[in-house]
Amino acid sequence: MSTPPSLHALIAALKTLPGIGPKSAQRMAFHLMQRDQKGAADLATALNNALGKLKHCSLCNTFAEVDLCDVCSDEKRQHNLLCVVEMPTDLMMLEQTLAFHGLYFVLMGRLSPLDGIGPNDIALQRLLERASDGVVEEVILATNFTTEGEATAHYLAEMLRARGLKVSRIARGMPVGGELEHVDAGTLAQAMLERRSV
Amino acid sequence: MSTPPSLHALIAALKTLPGIGPKSAQRMAFHLMQRDQKGAADLATALNNALGKLKHCSLCNTFAEVDLCDVCSDEKRQHNLLCVVEMPTDLMMLEQTLAFHGLYFVLMGRLSPLDGIGPNDIALQRLLERASDGVVEEVILATNFTTEGEATAHYLAEMLRARGLKVSRIARGMPVGGELEHVDAGTLAQAMLERRSV
Ligand SMILES: [Zn+2]
Ligand SMILES: [Zn+2]
Repeated sequence: MSTPPSLHALIAALKTLPGIGPKSAQRMAFHLMQRDQKGAADLATALNNALGKLKHCSLCNTFAEVDLCDVCSDEKRQHNLLCVVEMPTDLMMLEQTLAFHGLYFVLMGRLSPLDGIGPNDIALQRLLERASDGVVEEVILATNFTTEGEATAHYLAEMLRARGLKVSRIARGMPVGGELEHVDAGTLAQAMLERRSV
Repeated sequence: MSTPPSLHALIAALKTLPGIGPKSAQRMAFHLMQRDQKGAADLATALNNALGKLKHCSLCNTFAEVDLCDVCSDEKRQHNLLCVVEMPTDLMMLEQTLAFHGLYFVLMGRLSPLDGIGPNDIALQRLLERASDGVVEEVILATNFTTEGEATAHYLAEMLRARGLKVSRIARGMPVGGELEHVDAGTLAQAMLERRSV
């Protein structure tokens, strides 16, 4: 009893999705073919549609279907502030805070030598060009505070400072509403080290 | 900052996959569009290909691209023994034990009132017709030993016995609550050998 070729190929294709193992891929394939053929057709259409339409904003590098995304084409933003984030989700999170009115640059990744993601695999060169446009005065590094995000920020800071740009990093410390008792020791230590006069 | 429509649609389509939440769907969409466009194209092709080619074996109801699957078209099998399983995976698991040489019937599911899967949603009517062909002498119920699999077996046993068929259940060599897919071949072979009339 062999699996039909088209089913085998579908399971193999699903298995390449991040976080999907052989068992999950098989379960998904059976589900789609047995209980949700419309879902399968919709997913195929959505994939082809996204492949055809999605590109990157020419200024900030986030996903967009147009040349210039909503944020970059908003003339009321502060064009002298450039905030660097890893992914489009991070940009959206910051937008929700309403605390930043400058522009963004989305790396679409982070330096991760273990995963084979080096400086050429994220949009580093484009960031350097973008930040050197003569209008940007300060680059705010808002990569994650993970090991990889920190290493990326460190690397970017050196390259940007070498070009004479002012570089800053979003602050580390206690979460708003956070209790000392429930915060990890590393965060608390950092909050202590980075204490400010009040 | 709004998500581009084609990206939003892709995330929504991925979210309908079983076991995939909003965060995973977003991560998958970003991964496919940023790092694996070939994977995205391959998945779309595999989905459309499977939708176009996959159907059900006219005799045993498992997935097949041809009218009669490998097992059903094998004349050396014992045509008087019919083993009922929930899914094609279960059929494959039983084939690997080499302990059964009859034919199969794949329900493509199990009775699951909580999920809205009733007798009309699994291939019950087809099973009754299949088992009443005058050749089948014994129907071996090999649904899972989960609550739903047991309930399905119980329901099938009543209907099949009412038609004068001998009905058996693979032995409870299986761990209670266990699924065929996760059991070793030896245990499964034993369960097949020790099947009892019900
Ligand atoms: Zn933009
Ligand atoms: Zn068949």
